[in-house]
Amino acid sequence: MDIRQKFGKRLRQLREERGWSQEEFADRAGLHRTYVSAVERGVRNPTLSVLERLAKALDIKLSELVQSV
Amino acid sequence: MDIRQKFGKRLRQLREERGWSQEEFADRAGLHRTYVSAVERGVRNPTLSVLERLAKALDIKLSELVQSV
Repeated sequence: MDIRQKFGKRLRQLREERGWSQEEFADRAGLHRTYVSAVERGVRNPTLSVLERLAKALDIKLSELVQSV
Repeated sequence: MDIRQKFGKRLRQLREERGWSQEEFADRAGLHRTYVSAVERGVRNPTLSVLERLAKALDIKLSELVQSV
């Protein structure tokens, strides 16, 4: 499993822990739902600034977001 | 300071702690020296897989690489 897939799994887990739909999570992060879906499926390679947006939306540190990835 | 600049400062600190030139670090990470220089200056937005390469070259976890960023 490459890092994009591992990260995608981690992101889905963090989102589902909060009971959010992809739509709600995308809105919170200021991203498109289809992009969040693609990142969760491991078929996108998010940049540092996208990772920052995702961490802020989840209200966690960037280092926590990529933990165990 | 935006996240790319904060990360660039962090990357430079980690490289210099190891006494590596940008050239040596780039070789270890399988990247071009000019790209490493640009990331350190905060003018590039590295992707997740580039972050993984940088962390592997530094022999640290991804979460450590982006700590305090």
